[in-house]
Amino acid sequence: MENYFEFPEIPTEELPKVDNAADLKKLPMEDLPKLAENIRRTLISSLAKTGGHLGPNLGVVELSIALHRIFNTPDDKFVFDVSHQGYVHKMLTGRWDEIHTIRQYEGLNGFLLRSESEHDCYGAGHAGTAVSAALGMASARDVLGKKDHVVAVAGDAAFTCGPTFEALNNIAATTKKFILVLNDNEWSIDRNVGAIAKYFHALQTSSTYSHIHDKAAEFVELVAGKTGRDLVHKVERGAKNLLFPNVLFEKFGMHYYGPIDGHDLDLLVKTFDFLKDQEEPVVLHIITEKGRGYEPAKANPMKFHGLGPYKTETGETPASGSPTFSQLYGEYLGKFAKEDEMIVAVTAAMPNGTGLTGFQAQVPERYYDVGIAEEHAALFACGQAVQGLKPFLTIYSTFFQRAYDMAVHDIGIQNLPVRLCMDRAGLSGDDGPTHHGLFDIGYMRHIPNWVFMQPKDEDEFVDMLWTMANYDEGPIAVRYPRGAGTGATIKETPQLLEIGKAEVLEDGTDIALFGLGHLFEMAEATKTELEKMGFSVALINPRWIKPLDGACIEKFGRQCKVVMSFEDHVLHNGFGAAIIEHLNDAGIQTPVERIGWPDQFVEHGKVDILREKHGISVKHAIAKALKHLPAPKEEAIAS
Amino acid sequence: MENYFEFPEIPTEELPKVDNAADLKKLPMEDLPKLAENIRRTLISSLAKTGGHLGPNLGVVELSIALHRIFNTPDDKFVFDVSHQGYVHKMLTGRWDEIHTIRQYEGLNGFLLRSESEHDCYGAGHAGTAVSAALGMASARDVLGKKDHVVAVAGDAAFTCGPTFEALNNIAATTKKFILVLNDNEWSIDRNVGAIAKYFHALQTSSTYSHIHDKAAEFVELVAGKTGRDLVHKVERGAKNLLFPNVLFEKFGMHYYGPIDGHDLDLLVKTFDFLKDQEEPVVLHIITEKGRGYEPAKANPMKFHGLGPYKTETGETPASGSPTFSQLYGEYLGKFAKEDEMIVAVTAAMPNGTGLTGFQAQVPERYYDVGIAEEHAALFACGQAVQGLKPFLTIYSTFFQRAYDMAVHDIGIQNLPVRLCMDRAGLSGDDGPTHHGLFDIGYMRHIPNWVFMQPKDEDEFVDMLWTMANYDEGPIAVRYPRGAGTGATIKETPQLLEIGKAEVLEDGTDIALFGLGHLFEMAEATKTELEKMGFSVALINPRWIKPLDGACIEKFGRQCKVVMSFEDHVLHNGFGAAIIEHLNDAGIQTPVERIGWPDQFVEHGKVDILREKHGISVKHAIAKALKHLPAPKEEAIAS
Repeated sequence: MENYFEFPEIPTEELPKVDNAADLKKLPMEDLPKLAENIRRTLISSLAKTGGHLGPNLGVVELSIALHRIFNTPDDKFVFDVSHQGYVHKMLTGRWDEIHTIRQYEGLNGFLLRSESEHDCYGAGHAGTAVSAALGMASARDVLGKKDHVVAVAGDAAFTCGPTFEALNNIAATTKKFILVLNDNEWSIDRNVGAIAKYFHALQTSSTYSHIHDKAAEFVELVAGKTGRDLVHKVERGAKNLLFPNVLFEKFGMHYYGPIDGHDLDLLVKTFDFLKDQEEPVVLHIITEKGRGYEPAKANPMKFHGLGPYKTETGETPASGSPTFSQLYGEYLGKFAKEDEMIVAVTAAMPNGTGLTGFQAQVPERYYDVGIAEEHAALFACGQAVQGLKPFLTIYSTFFQRAYDMAVHDIGIQNLPVRLCMDRAGLSGDDGPTHHGLFDIGYMRHIPNWVFMQPKDEDEFVDMLWTMANYDEGPIAVRYPRGAGTGATIKETPQLLEIGKAEVLEDGTDIALFGLGHLFEMAEATKTELEKMGFSVALINPRWIKPLDGACIEKFGRQCKVVMSFEDHVLHNGFGAAIIEHLNDAGIQTPVERIGWPDQFVEHGKVDILREKHGISVKHAIAKALKHLPAPKEEAIAS
Repeated sequence: MENYFEFPEIPTEELPKVDNAADLKKLPMEDLPKLAENIRRTLISSLAKTGGHLGPNLGVVELSIALHRIFNTPDDKFVFDVSHQGYVHKMLTGRWDEIHTIRQYEGLNGFLLRSESEHDCYGAGHAGTAVSAALGMASARDVLGKKDHVVAVAGDAAFTCGPTFEALNNIAATTKKFILVLNDNEWSIDRNVGAIAKYFHALQTSSTYSHIHDKAAEFVELVAGKTGRDLVHKVERGAKNLLFPNVLFEKFGMHYYGPIDGHDLDLLVKTFDFLKDQEEPVVLHIITEKGRGYEPAKANPMKFHGLGPYKTETGETPASGSPTFSQLYGEYLGKFAKEDEMIVAVTAAMPNGTGLTGFQAQVPERYYDVGIAEEHAALFACGQAVQGLKPFLTIYSTFFQRAYDMAVHDIGIQNLPVRLCMDRAGLSGDDGPTHHGLFDIGYMRHIPNWVFMQPKDEDEFVDMLWTMANYDEGPIAVRYPRGAGTGATIKETPQLLEIGKAEVLEDGTDIALFGLGHLFEMAEATKTELEKMGFSVALINPRWIKPLDGACIEKFGRQCKVVMSFEDHVLHNGFGAAIIEHLNDAGIQTPVERIGWPDQFVEHGKVDILREKHGISVKHAIAKALKHLPAPKEEAIAS
């Protein structure tokens, strides 16, 4: 299996395949490793075409098999933290033959979804929710007098998240029947940080423990036929697959077992068989390898955590085109920081995704990765701002929801000059609803003191970063999308932008198009079409979500028959809604047509498909505009 | 001092008084206990008139004195978690003579505020922020090459909060100079819950530790002139004020000292003098008594955590009037739960404030207090909903900001029938900006799948709870204010409300008044005034924030000259904004006037004063209405 990436010529037919737990339970034990190999082979070849979370799923093949061998979903509940490691679970619960559709429009979601299968009892895309949600399920089971099992599976990264600790604090007081699997691979997305990561690592390598607790001894005898004495001896030799007391978890009132080899199917199956009968909350610590069975993924766990299509033989991915907003972010913020020693950058476990690796390369001493801990990241940045530093808090739009209270209670009320950079604002595409950044205007605009903006292209983005670096009066935020923009050339020297002043590209009297951020392009294309029809079209790059350029909005509200907004955000409480609100308050009753996302959670799929489906296109914009404009001139339509 | 509450006839002049750290440092050590007594006396007599957080402040008198004796603010930073225990700090930093104004309009705030004093480096009103923010300050100090001290003071309750753990995980990797004071009184607001509380308690009473670490021995010799051997002996006898290793904090890479008596001024001063020179992160565990020095507060720590005016001699508070929304909540939800065994209730450390004690008294087996852990509370409720229970998640509007991501990512996307009951929605009054619930419509309305409502009075509130109990299709929320409502009689049998259907109290053609929730009363009074002027006034109780009653809004938008909304919420992204958005989309260009809070953080003070100041009154409503209505008929004005 170590050489599986070479794709030996053995026909797949020789490997067992089961796509449901009932059949899995009938398979001879000795066939389980072959099933694991088939799953790995399928994942590696299938994801090569679709992309996806390859590394994490290769790491949990045996774990998923063992869980379904012992437990019975949907009655028993598996709650996978983040759930990007749920592909194998999907394959074993009726979805093996659809795995090639993963992350494709109308195909399987890349995370677990309750609406996709009754075996997915809990969906997720953000980290640190599994232990809490599973504990709720366990408490409900107890209230209902049922006996079903609840198993939470959380990576080591979940232990940098506050909610995980909040849950741990409540387990022992809540239930006597709870299984937590700590899937420890020393990586979350990027390498883990902090004291807990260090502690878990020490557990793996420790050889100083001198006794095993009673339960563990009993368990070990059961599964391994060893005596406690032999085990202690093995521990002293540094062997890993052994059981000894763990101080941290036991302080939380849980019995700890492990660490054990998370790729040893026999051991895993016996272990779960033992743990399911325990009448106390237990944690099982398993050690797994990200990318197991595929050399390129093992060699580069960060890249293979989640990626697009790749060449199966080598793991190579196609060269990328224009630099993304994220890449520019790291590069330019680093440049500014070299000149301005007050600039620091904070990320919550996303150095690569946010491009901050580019900052770190330039200014490592002012770079902070705090783990998957958005609340702490925001508070930490507050403390830095108190001392006069210029913290750039760098978090995806969807993940910043975790630090929402800090945006109000800490940054907002105290008017602290924290610079919030919200990557992945707007539709995220393939990742689906847990990752779309479609709510940030809604949740931010009504918080007093904040300034908030969005750039139409890469050059303006750099101007905005520069403006943020030079703005000390209070909180300031920028939202920008996944991927690249128009590919605009970035000028030599960035320009300070005037706060609250929109950029009017063209005046006009029939209709005014306000194209926010990367949807400016769509507004521009709409203008071209409407002009062809003979209309006088104003085109505005609003730049500022807050403060709005009220004078500009009023001017066009007064002189045009209709105002139209374009935004990569839901319409409710969005940018267009702000325009409507402003016009109403100014006593201007001009209708506003809006292009943006509807009041529903948008599915996963390619951005273009989803935009077209949900009415975010030039065609839809034209149709909405024409409701308010005189019939187009004949010759214009003909052209 | 034990009998201080009897107010002996000793003239205050005989007790030392200092209101700044420079003078405090000059005071002979033996005068410090007298200073403490003066502070206690002042607090007890002053708060008897204003109300406030008496218990917590009586508990930290010696701690605050010792901190200011050793450190120098504003250069050194004290970060108090929640900061309701900051009164003594205020008195010692120039505000002694203003303490009688605390929580009064234009007086001192009941929490720390950066805008109030340069000695308040960090404000708060929500728990669990101090360790993170202080760590940010420490990291900034290190970047800037300074040597100032940063001291975080957190109660034991902060250790039920996720952000505290996120911060702990980062301390050792971030700085070598950091002091965390764990102020342990076994109470946060209500008695603490969970494994950590139990663990801290065990530390206090433990007599099994068998050795002291080197640093501790050194320290003890310094402060107490004892040898390590003597100390071990004392530990074995169960003495508390001693120092031994602590597993939990040391796993987080911090050196632990304690527990020590938090009322021993001599020991505290020597301890801080020692700790300030340590070149590693340290935690000092002090044991304090809430309400120290005042028998009524010691006897009833929950009541005296925070309260209104009381009789100094006895601690008695005036009898309350109509039952509050919170009291009705606990009472009626408990009633419903006795009939419906699927109902469970979850609170995040607010059983008393939310009235859930009334539920607990009736259905203790389905009541869950998870500690100050709103994220976990929300996730836990999700897990319960997955299993088919009917969880009532009960959280103040302002604290639910902590679980915002769960409202989107867990409850919303999965469309789980979690019932969210947001107490303290609207202006909270005396507590000020950290406690006002003025943003929840803004942050909730754009989240798909949620149903959201607000009752005009107590009777409708019970109908809404009943409707929630019987609504299983997805997430549903209700917001309701602090205190009592109109005192409406609650009918025998609650009524199921039709989702999304407003209640039209009166038709009219000049103006339509939409009075949301407890501001319905103001709309009603406005109607009376406008009718006196001869106008035809429609009066609507909207009930539903989401889904809006679109048909109702359109009807009145079409038939009236102006629509007016009343809401106890900020105007941006508020209920009135939703009406404007809806009318625009329906192609109805009727102007909308709105009564609500402006785009700024509203200060503390009595609700009436603040409403009048910020334009939330019948008078303001009339003025806004008249902008759109024909000149009132003469006879009407005369009447």
